[in-house]
Amino acid sequence: MFERLKRLLIGRPMKSNELEGERLSKLKALAILSSDALSSVAYGTEQILLVLIAAGFTALWYSLPIALAVLGLLAILIISYRQTIFSYPSGGGAYIVAKDNLGKAPSLVAGGSLLVDYILTVAVSSSAGTDAITSAFPSLHDHRVLIALIMIIFLTILNLRGVTESASVLAIPIYLFVIAIFVLIVSGIIKYMSGGVHAAHPEFGAAVSNASLFLLLKAFSSGCSALTGVEAVSNAIPNFREPAAKNAAKTLLMMGLILGAMFTGITLLAYWFGIQPTEKSTVISQIAEATFGRGALYFIIQGVTAVILFLAANTAYSAFPLLAFMFAKDKYMPHMFMVRGDRLGFSNGILFLSIFSAILVIVFGGNTESLIPLYAVGVFIPFTLSQLGMMMRWVRLKPDGWVIKLAINTIGMLTTLSITLIFVITKFTQVWVIFIFLPLVVYVFYKIRAHYDNTADQLRINLQEDKPNPKGNTIIIPISGITRVVLNTVSYAKTLSNNVVAVYIGFDDESIAKMEKKWAEWDPGIRLIVLKSRYRSIMRPLMKFIQTVEWKKSAEDHITILIPQFVTKHWWENVLHNQTSIMMRAYFIRYKEVIVTTVPFHLKN
Amino acid sequence: MFERLKRLLIGRPMKSNELEGERLSKLKALAILSSDALSSVAYGTEQILLVLIAAGFTALWYSLPIALAVLGLLAILIISYRQTIFSYPSGGGAYIVAKDNLGKAPSLVAGGSLLVDYILTVAVSSSAGTDAITSAFPSLHDHRVLIALIMIIFLTILNLRGVTESASVLAIPIYLFVIAIFVLIVSGIIKYMSGGVHAAHPEFGAAVSNASLFLLLKAFSSGCSALTGVEAVSNAIPNFREPAAKNAAKTLLMMGLILGAMFTGITLLAYWFGIQPTEKSTVISQIAEATFGRGALYFIIQGVTAVILFLAANTAYSAFPLLAFMFAKDKYMPHMFMVRGDRLGFSNGILFLSIFSAILVIVFGGNTESLIPLYAVGVFIPFTLSQLGMMMRWVRLKPDGWVIKLAINTIGMLTTLSITLIFVITKFTQVWVIFIFLPLVVYVFYKIRAHYDNTADQLRINLQEDKPNPKGNTIIIPISGITRVVLNTVSYAKTLSNNVVAVYIGFDDESIAKMEKKWAEWDPGIRLIVLKSRYRSIMRPLMKFIQTVEWKKSAEDHITILIPQFVTKHWWENVLHNQTSIMMRAYFIRYKEVIVTTVPFHLKN
Repeated sequence: MFERLKRLLIGRPMKSNELEGERLSKLKALAILSSDALSSVAYGTEQILLVLIAAGFTALWYSLPIALAVLGLLAILIISYRQTIFSYPSGGGAYIVAKDNLGKAPSLVAGGSLLVDYILTVAVSSSAGTDAITSAFPSLHDHRVLIALIMIIFLTILNLRGVTESASVLAIPIYLFVIAIFVLIVSGIIKYMSGGVHAAHPEFGAAVSNASLFLLLKAFSSGCSALTGVEAVSNAIPNFREPAAKNAAKTLLMMGLILGAMFTGITLLAYWFGIQPTEKSTVISQIAEATFGRGALYFIIQGVTAVILFLAANTAYSAFPLLAFMFAKDKYMPHMFMVRGDRLGFSNGILFLSIFSAILVIVFGGNTESLIPLYAVGVFIPFTLSQLGMMMRWVRLKPDGWVIKLAINTIGMLTTLSITLIFVITKFTQVWVIFIFLPLVVYVFYKIRAHYDNTADQLRINLQEDKPNPKGNTIIIPISGITRVVLNTVSYAKTLSNNVVAVYIGFDDESIAKMEKKWAEWDPGIRLIVLKSRYRSIMRPLMKFIQTVEWKKSAEDHITILIPQFVTKHWWENVLHNQTSIMMRAYFIRYKEVIVTTVPFHLKN
Repeated sequence: MFERLKRLLIGRPMKSNELEGERLSKLKALAILSSDALSSVAYGTEQILLVLIAAGFTALWYSLPIALAVLGLLAILIISYRQTIFSYPSGGGAYIVAKDNLGKAPSLVAGGSLLVDYILTVAVSSSAGTDAITSAFPSLHDHRVLIALIMIIFLTILNLRGVTESASVLAIPIYLFVIAIFVLIVSGIIKYMSGGVHAAHPEFGAAVSNASLFLLLKAFSSGCSALTGVEAVSNAIPNFREPAAKNAAKTLLMMGLILGAMFTGITLLAYWFGIQPTEKSTVISQIAEATFGRGALYFIIQGVTAVILFLAANTAYSAFPLLAFMFAKDKYMPHMFMVRGDRLGFSNGILFLSIFSAILVIVFGGNTESLIPLYAVGVFIPFTLSQLGMMMRWVRLKPDGWVIKLAINTIGMLTTLSITLIFVITKFTQVWVIFIFLPLVVYVFYKIRAHYDNTADQLRINLQEDKPNPKGNTIIIPISGITRVVLNTVSYAKTLSNNVVAVYIGFDDESIAKMEKKWAEWDPGIRLIVLKSRYRSIMRPLMKFIQTVEWKKSAEDHITILIPQFVTKHWWENVLHNQTSIMMRAYFIRYKEVIVTTVPFHLKN
């Protein structure tokens, strides 16, 4: 039944060689990898204006140069990541770049930071999407956590079904969003040019007495939150169709151009329309209202914006399992993250991401806004390390034109480092936890790696010298009566060894005498040993007996316990029988040289 | 660690022959078995007055004849159960008496009804005790469910520790309660005799226009709720010290006298003091206030009453496991209810009772009052059946003086039957569920019995004819590489059979070729078979291979799968390894003639 439900939700299992078919075309890749980055257009400009308005309406003109700076940073990031893609065509996230150029510890910091960040992305995005829904339907406000969890479950199923299928589903809202925003921008520009806007806008270049450098930097760093998600493409190169690197680079460029154009358009319109950030209405909503009025077009724009905010979580679903796979391959995370599921996705990574983000949503009661600064820091730390890694690479390899490349990465590194520092300084109370959590995560990575190395050392054999060395074997059959199950087990035991004994544990002398008599009557050709238990325990007398056997036998011998067990026809019937065999297994697994086997006898009805 | 916590809570395990020491003296038995019955004094009189007040203050004089009728019923029950105790000295609850005299179905109805009832007792009593606590500390009202659950957990631990220990703990509050009530009654009588009571009491024998027979019957049946719990002694005879039957009979008589005297005293005082039932103050509280004023004595009486209401649940804890044991012995309930725990109590019965009553408390949010009528019906159905059974017995055996004995049981049967009918008629909306639930429970009993009978038939062997019949054995070792674990397993396999093959399942041709080469180099003396899996599944190719082997081999052969597995030093390290062996076991347990064995290799660190 579970199997059937799984098929319904996830689809039929796929062959390994269908993997190529699961790879992404550029258009689908853009849809699946850009939702996080593109969705930030919905709040990027607003973040800048929110900081600036503290210095008064006039200060809002600074949004234009700040937006230009953000665009510059975007350009630097895009160019830099293009360089990364071609340098690391098999996938070059911050983890790979740092590992290759900076060494173990920085790469673990970068990768660990990203892994934690993807979990935060899912939690924050699903909460943001829920906010959009509950703004429209306030009666749903009490069910926020439930709605966010349903969204996470929906994304989980979508991603378990496989990469291309989820791309097909997601492409529609994402392209709708892009089209809607461009329609808004073009219409807004036409309206402004034709003199249809009557609100005053702040004078460009006006002196603002209380606009400190700190304020401007804070506004800039806030605007940079629009750039989270740009790294998704460089992590996901193995998901692209061949030639993967080239396609990935083109997709990245496309994404950068679309993001830049949308961000520029929105910021310009916000300036021209003299829009001030308010609690009640988002900047996009104000621009749309000023352009179209509260008509059908307005609501379409609001609707697709809500959907895209929610879908931003999906970027994490394509990036997290891949990064986890790389960590698992390098033995910093459990092997299970390397296993491809029925539909060729890394199911364990997907499930892990869902479970931990769901826990965050539940713990924060759906109010994950306070996690946003944490989330931004978690992005810019690996950005910085990745840039630094690329700098090292150019210095080391010195290919043609390496000076320019080095310059680009140096500028990028300094900028992202500054933004990280600004975040840490201006929002320390919200981000301090990362300085505890990140070292902890890195420590766990090291411990896991140490365990795997240690295990491998212990398991390695020398093919020439270490050969099988058969030993003796004593077989013990614990019995509680003479039944068909025991008969079955004794028959089986006789195929394995001539050294078989049955052991009966009685609670009183009477039952022991009775058993001995019955055994003599049956005479199955093996010896019966009876033990008396005064504590009604089966394990303790049996254990003592085995220790006696161990003491007598040569040190080289195995002891095999064969447990006669009948298997009921229906699983629920097991409740009616004492599960001694499960207890025995759990008990004896701790003892070396004792092998516990259950010999099943299947009841017919 | 779990083991240590268990020892701390439950105590050291006890030997089976310590059972005699766990048996109860009369005084302890009175304490442990009478809490349910005696606690009903706290509300018995009130239940009568609450019904009568509907016909006006004057009608309250009827409480005296009704109390007399209840006392009469109590006398009949006590005499009748004395007869039962001597007829069934090894424990004669309604189940045994009905089984012996009325047959299978009535006995299952009686016993099933009691089992359900004990669960209700625990739920209702723990909620009532919680009410007493939250009345004193209203701020705790929001934590009602938690408090009731803590009470249930406390009783569970107490009873898991063993019968005598819980008797020692419980004796103090119960005897305190008895003393407190007698002090109250004597003081109240002195006060009344010395003319210290100024309130008017209703005239005895005054005509009451609207006191219908229905009302009086309802008042009588409500008063009978004071008699629930009387049957506890007759169920628990095996818990008494020898001579068990005599001691039980004496204890029953003592309990009846104490209960009767307390009930008479409280009812008389309530009448003399002219007390009317109100929402705010219980009858006991009003009597105590009128006698002592709101001083220390008043609060002591309220305190011990609250404690005794809560302890009423404990009666169920001594009765349920014993009754469940009898059912399990007769194969109507799972075997596990027959297993004595470390401390010689029937731990599974105790835990079952706790879990289901806790579920009731949680489902009803701690408001289990609506379950009280159900609970009363659940007591009087087995009462009636037990009396009917005794009637049959006298008619059948005709011992000396059987006519009188028959008369007593006939009167008892007719009375309890009438009370049952009155309950059903006057409170049908609250008790109808028992007519669905009870048949269902009885049906489950029959199904369980049928399963056990069926299993026993299938497992039975003929000692003369059915002898062990050794067959062939093919051993299969699935491997994923050549490691020390595989070496260990191959060595072990060679002790068992010469018919051993290793199976490697590869996902691509390259890994298969590599494995074949390595195996040839190692040359462990057994054959390697390689299989290719296109779905990354281990199970399906392995299953197909086993089916091929089965097809080739003679029908008589066993197939043994030896799974090489390493056991990590710390359990949590298992997260880091794919648990293929667990999956294999779960998968192959369904197939007959396939025996799955895990061959453990213990990592040293």
